[in-house]
Amino acid sequence: MPRYRLLIEYDGGPFQGWQAQENGPSVQGAIERAVKAFCGETVRLVAAGRTDTGVHALGQVAHLDLQRDWPADTVRDALNAHLRPAPVGVLEAQAVGEDFHARFSATGRRYLYRILNRRSPPVLERGRVWHVRKPLDVEAMNAAAKVLVGRHDFTTFRDAGCQSKSPVKTLDVAEVERVGEEVRLRFAARSFLHRQVRSMTGALVEAGLGRLTAEDVREILEAADRRRCPTVAPADGLYLAAVTY
Amino acid sequence: MPRYRLLIEYDGGPFQGWQAQENGPSVQGAIERAVKAFCGETVRLVAAGRTDTGVHALGQVAHLDLQRDWPADTVRDALNAHLRPAPVGVLEAQAVGEDFHARFSATGRRYLYRILNRRSPPVLERGRVWHVRKPLDVEAMNAAAKVLVGRHDFTTFRDAGCQSKSPVKTLDVAEVERVGEEVRLRFAARSFLHRQVRSMTGALVEAGLGRLTAEDVREILEAADRRRCPTVAPADGLYLAAVTY
Repeated sequence: MPRYRLLIEYDGGPFQGWQAQENGPSVQGAIERAVKAFCGETVRLVAAGRTDTGVHALGQVAHLDLQRDWPADTVRDALNAHLRPAPVGVLEAQAVGEDFHARFSATGRRYLYRILNRRSPPVLERGRVWHVRKPLDVEAMNAAAKVLVGRHDFTTFRDAGCQSKSPVKTLDVAEVERVGEEVRLRFAARSFLHRQVRSMTGALVEAGLGRLTAEDVREILEAADRRRCPTVAPADGLYLAAVTY
Repeated sequence: MPRYRLLIEYDGGPFQGWQAQENGPSVQGAIERAVKAFCGETVRLVAAGRTDTGVHALGQVAHLDLQRDWPADTVRDALNAHLRPAPVGVLEAQAVGEDFHARFSATGRRYLYRILNRRSPPVLERGRVWHVRKPLDVEAMNAAAKVLVGRHDFTTFRDAGCQSKSPVKTLDVAEVERVGEEVRLRFAARSFLHRQVRSMTGALVEAGLGRLTAEDVREILEAADRRRCPTVAPADGLYLAAVTY
């Protein structure tokens, strides 16, 4: 049974997240329906990361098994044709061995968080950025971000409903840069806890607004107490950027 | 009567262009209604460039006269509040003298044209780019773009309905660069003819696909014949980027 690896882009806005839901549209559901329309098969997709409601993807990875051995480019083009008008696209399809597993074979995930940092509300980037009106101090954000890098108990920065066995994770990258009116945060780790990126981003924005120092962020992290998380950034600005294998 | 200069961003998608229309929404109409809602005054906005249906703006400039002398920041914030949910935003408002005229005082206009150059259709950038599937040769596009720079009769590249007295314009900048999966074209001139940027972009894409050489583009330009224009790029990818004074 041939297995295919898909590289997927989506606008999370109209979806209740990646995972198929009983009530409400999901990205997984949209692609599974496109597979059914393409070749009549009922499949179950497995993704590297189950993104939350409203979260976008530039490079989600998923795998699926088909009965018939289609050329990978046919799978990509047929899925794109059947996905319209849903804002989901298959950027690449690739035949892979049965030992490839989109979730368990992944060795790293990269997230991008985009903030529009200007007085006026977003227009062209509406729904794609978090709007922060007051000027952000990117240097202060980077100083606070450095505190988060490394192996820590991230209890403060994980959602109360997080299913992960352990709150201990190793954050490899946490970087902040200004690009014109935007402030972009980049995070990389083997894996993340539920809402970890949005929770960390919330704290870094507090640092950028001068309300928390890097030392405060360290103290909040070391408290390992969810109630100490200052704020959780909205889904609009979050993108699953890439998955590595 | 205080005059205000506005710097405006908009998503052209839902509008039948800048100019107030009898049938269909316009950007001008949306802002004029916001002014009415803010201070009760019926005004007429004058813009630097009357963009076509579906064309976007990152930096349109317009002026308006109000009876009362409001702080410029109040004008900006009030208009943004009343513009919602229309995808139009006032980035800046500035009090200016009565000699400032958004259209006649302008000394230059800059346009950006964005092409998504990949096999898969646009998802996150849907409605914001022209989708060209086949690989574009940016070097060939730049060679052809050089032919267009300078003072020429641009009859080939202007719409049949163009109202401009003369087809002779001076194009100061025509540059093409690749940024990841995007190909971006930038044009600058004192002023442009109707549909000139989209017509030139159409020809440059033909050059990028290897269907026209730079010499062919020169010949088409020198023919000064609208019927020789190879193709007109769609509105989706076009942005009025900036106006200079």
